[in-house]
Amino acid sequence: MSTKAPKTAISPTRAENYNEWYQKIVRASDIAELSGVRGCQILKAWGYGTWEQMQHDLDRRFKDTGHENYYFPMYIPISYFQREADHVEGFAKEMAVVTHHRLTKNADGKLVPDGELEEPLIIRPTSETIIGESMSKWIQSYRDLPLLLNQWANVSRWEMRPRILLRTAEFLWQEGHTAHETKDDAMRETTQMLEVYRAFCEDVLAIPVITGEKIAAERFPGAVNTYCIEAMMQDGRALQAGTSHYLGHSFAKACTIQFQSRTGSLDYVHTTSWGVSTRLLGALVMTHGDDNGMKMPPRIAPYQVVIIPILREDSPKEEIMTACEKLKADLLNETLDGQPVRVKIDSRDIQSSEKRWDWIKKGAPLIVEIGAKDIASGKVCVTRRDKLEDGKRFDERGTFVGNIGLELATIQQALFDTAAAFRASRLVRDIKDWAAFEAYFSKDEDGGFTGGQGFVRAKWCGDETSLTKLDVLGVTVRCIPFDQDGCEGVCVLTGRPATLEVIFARAY
Amino acid sequence: MSTKAPKTAISPTRAENYNEWYQKIVRASDIAELSGVRGCQILKAWGYGTWEQMQHDLDRRFKDTGHENYYFPMYIPISYFQREADHVEGFAKEMAVVTHHRLTKNADGKLVPDGELEEPLIIRPTSETIIGESMSKWIQSYRDLPLLLNQWANVSRWEMRPRILLRTAEFLWQEGHTAHETKDDAMRETTQMLEVYRAFCEDVLAIPVITGEKIAAERFPGAVNTYCIEAMMQDGRALQAGTSHYLGHSFAKACTIQFQSRTGSLDYVHTTSWGVSTRLLGALVMTHGDDNGMKMPPRIAPYQVVIIPILREDSPKEEIMTACEKLKADLLNETLDGQPVRVKIDSRDIQSSEKRWDWIKKGAPLIVEIGAKDIASGKVCVTRRDKLEDGKRFDERGTFVGNIGLELATIQQALFDTAAAFRASRLVRDIKDWAAFEAYFSKDEDGGFTGGQGFVRAKWCGDETSLTKLDVLGVTVRCIPFDQDGCEGVCVLTGRPATLEVIFARAY
Repeated sequence: MSTKAPKTAISPTRAENYNEWYQKIVRASDIAELSGVRGCQILKAWGYGTWEQMQHDLDRRFKDTGHENYYFPMYIPISYFQREADHVEGFAKEMAVVTHHRLTKNADGKLVPDGELEEPLIIRPTSETIIGESMSKWIQSYRDLPLLLNQWANVSRWEMRPRILLRTAEFLWQEGHTAHETKDDAMRETTQMLEVYRAFCEDVLAIPVITGEKIAAERFPGAVNTYCIEAMMQDGRALQAGTSHYLGHSFAKACTIQFQSRTGSLDYVHTTSWGVSTRLLGALVMTHGDDNGMKMPPRIAPYQVVIIPILREDSPKEEIMTACEKLKADLLNETLDGQPVRVKIDSRDIQSSEKRWDWIKKGAPLIVEIGAKDIASGKVCVTRRDKLEDGKRFDERGTFVGNIGLELATIQQALFDTAAAFRASRLVRDIKDWAAFEAYFSKDEDGGFTGGQGFVRAKWCGDETSLTKLDVLGVTVRCIPFDQDGCEGVCVLTGRPATLEVIFARAY
Repeated sequence: MSTKAPKTAISPTRAENYNEWYQKIVRASDIAELSGVRGCQILKAWGYGTWEQMQHDLDRRFKDTGHENYYFPMYIPISYFQREADHVEGFAKEMAVVTHHRLTKNADGKLVPDGELEEPLIIRPTSETIIGESMSKWIQSYRDLPLLLNQWANVSRWEMRPRILLRTAEFLWQEGHTAHETKDDAMRETTQMLEVYRAFCEDVLAIPVITGEKIAAERFPGAVNTYCIEAMMQDGRALQAGTSHYLGHSFAKACTIQFQSRTGSLDYVHTTSWGVSTRLLGALVMTHGDDNGMKMPPRIAPYQVVIIPILREDSPKEEIMTACEKLKADLLNETLDGQPVRVKIDSRDIQSSEKRWDWIKKGAPLIVEIGAKDIASGKVCVTRRDKLEDGKRFDERGTFVGNIGLELATIQQALFDTAAAFRASRLVRDIKDWAAFEAYFSKDEDGGFTGGQGFVRAKWCGDETSLTKLDVLGVTVRCIPFDQDGCEGVCVLTGRPATLEVIFARAY
């Protein structure tokens, strides 16, 4: 008997080569692909469709918390950008710079830059400085506060080692920017938006996250405090899925954003900023993907049910297509979370088995096949993507339709539970000293799906100079989780007394 | 008795100085303002909110016609861009060019561009060339056709004479790009999308448009045929509100987009592209604005009803706020076109009269004020923005709520009818020779609200060399309308025999 592993849709598998598996699944799921333009990506229909669902859900949460959308220029004059010193240090190294506003043909007929700008412009890597410029004009008095803005936009950071969906020269995101009268107000906003992100990631993306604060070395350039949500990928690495920053007076002073207070004094506002990006698509893939492709959580899937007509040469084509349309119409009357179920009929002119594998790779939560036999028997042939090993099942048509909302909610929960169980299996709490720590992260230096590393939650003395020990392991402090145990212990790096608990991990 | 004109919210009025009125109303309505970055604008909450409504409506129309959204890089290598010769001629003169990917401090501590790119990148002025690059990879066979893509994105054209909302260095738009087996298929797509734009402009934006084809001189660079919708602004000038292009084989050949046909031959695809942009916000303002501000058509207004609590020092504040919340809740249960009515309570800490004027300037279709007296009498005080001259009216609360869908539809129609009547009054059909033509367009060289010019619909011989006569008048051929009368006549420019009818106008 052959011991050959079963054939999978994605090759190599996660166990064989995790990094290559990631490149392959992103492409096979039709989420994204690299562009011919260096470091840039193309979001394809299934990936952009998922981003649209994210936008729709997040935008509602932002509006429910009182924010309004604006759109600011993507061009930032160097003089604006230069105003905040830390900000410059953090971003100036990797930005696109526009220096000319025209192309002309040179003597050889080649197009070359022409019309040099008096002041070069950078393409926004983030918009604190340009939005600060407007805030300084719009805010006069405490009556103008809080000012609660959000922007959906593309941003650009010139990444030296691009990685699809995670680090690209251009990506899409939202950036919230707010200004407040008091530090308390601004801190409430900062933590409120982190909680919005946590709820969104866990409830909608089915990605469990740890909420906490970044240590000083990992703060956003210009921030007083940076808070984050950290997720664990299937190779045990951490992925920062969203951040929320209390910026104190950094940008208020850099951009002169002042207001007349209730007592008549001229004060600086307290600002915040917070963002998530299309990197969440990468987090989705590395949380829910398997060796056959993606498993899209129902709440974020562009289509929750895909119907495939089974057409052979002798099939009653019209009858089958009518049955598909009728099933679609019935499903559209059903809901998940009060929203109509999202259904697509795949009527492409290709083999139905090829279609089925396409949707398995894309991760449509439920795939329904309908042929002449099914119509006769009043049944539908159903594949549940997250239970692919169970194969196809045959439901009474009415039962399938009536249960659809419940089944989608069940799939959503199952994906979250699987991810949470995986994380629990890789979240280590019993490493107490450097020898054990070093041994743990040395098991497999490349990490990888079978490497067995994950997050180490341990005591740390808080002395940032101790972190240089981590460099050789490629490990960083991901965050100081909010849920501290408060107990006395021993720093895993220095052996000194410590009460603080932090999360150590390799990260994307 | 004084003959002083009544005070208006926007000063100067349209009659006093149309161009300045436009700048003022865009700002006073909180739609947009110019940024400190040369030629760039900021879309503010009311303007961006209107754009969101446009996106939502158009996106549904695009999806209903089978298109899917993608996202392509904004950076285009010069070598891609250079592939289509006409395209280069049309766009190379006004583009942002990225030449460096880093800033460094020079000896004086000044940030300067560093890290020169091997090949400069342009910021997309439009995406035919970069999307064509992908199409050439994705399309192999006739089974891959049609390929129906759309993209929501920012684009950049370095305008020498920027004008807010109409010509800015960066703006937001959608660009559809499709590839087809046959010319017929591509032409059907081109005209279908023009019809989508026409229906959207007339039914949703309440802007009457003329549909037609551009003459050769006015085509999109690289297009075989360009179709357009042209609207008349209140100064009688034309504004191109949307275009749809049949691109033939221009980009298929430039980007080598080929497919194996049903007969086995290797053929070039036929491509199309089509777009509308945030310039439509400018069209809205110049169609529906008056001397007191904007009048937003209900179908596109971010809020259709704004509720203002009337709070004086001795008012029962809690009771009034509860009444406002209750009215909002009741209105949310009502619909326009099957969608819940969009309602906002303005609870800002400023005078209620100031709030009322804010919403008049913004153009909220209905403004409702609620004070203690209204609650006692069971009435609501209503201002219908498009009938401002009628002042406030007092409705039974129940009647107002029950009629809201109908009243919003009535306002929508009234705005369209007013715009259509204005256009009819300025669409001249009886100019038959050059003398009359010249006299008509010389009446007031600057155009302007009271200038009296508009569109001249007249016969033209089709000889493009005859158009040089128009230069001195600043007039162009806007389009060849689809609804030709087919009659023989005399060319208004040359006196030669002509059957073609065209629209002449000054344009934005």
